[in-house]
Amino acid sequence: MSQPPRFRIRIVFGPDAMIGPGKAELLERIAATGSIAGAGREMGMSYKRAWQLVETLNAMFREPLVRSTRGGARGGGAAVTEAGRAVLAEYRALEAQAEAAGAPHAARLQAMMRTAPGET
Amino acid sequence: MSQPPRFRIRIVFGPDAMIGPGKAELLERIAATGSIAGAGREMGMSYKRAWQLVETLNAMFREPLVRSTRGGARGGGAAVTEAGRAVLAEYRALEAQAEAAGAPHAARLQAMMRTAPGET
Repeated sequence: MSQPPRFRIRIVFGPDAMIGPGKAELLERIAATGSIAGAGREMGMSYKRAWQLVETLNAMFREPLVRSTRGGARGGGAAVTEAGRAVLAEYRALEAQAEAAGAPHAARLQAMMRTAPGET
Repeated sequence: MSQPPRFRIRIVFGPDAMIGPGKAELLERIAATGSIAGAGREMGMSYKRAWQLVETLNAMFREPLVRSTRGGARGGGAAVTEAGRAVLAEYRALEAQAEAAGAPHAARLQAMMRTAPGET
């Protein structure tokens, strides 16, 4: 029995405005770790890359999604704002709704696929 | 008035088995042009890359999605098979259903976004 297919959904609002699984996961990990660098590290991302993504997210929305206190004794911390939690919740809800709606088609695609070696 | 957001959806069936907007567009363009190289060229893709994607697609499914006649007088042609058309139709239907289901959330995300410069 093979795994159900997973959906990776990127929403493109404009040429420089998009949100997808990477940014959503980064927000979640910042909320969990209280650190942009720590969240990025967990995702195998450089410090610079994680900061760039946060800056992109903060520039995309009317209100910042992440607030940081740079340069403190422990290198500063970061928190996901109320706007950030709202954006994350909408994205996760969108994913869930889209996956539920697409699931019958995904199952039919999967049925047309070759069985991977080792699978039964 | 800004454009409605677009969804880019990748379905991940396994570590090496996924289908998304690029493969779908390639299939469509092969059907339209009758040529793998021509389809790839239209997408700004190298000949090698287009062939690799076709080989990946053909290996993923029980039946080939693209049949090619390599090395003819005009360098060979290619056609999308019945299985290929079925896969493409399922993917496009999945996209449409997922977009419709996700649209209210995407609209709420868009409403939280900063208005881009020049937009009203």
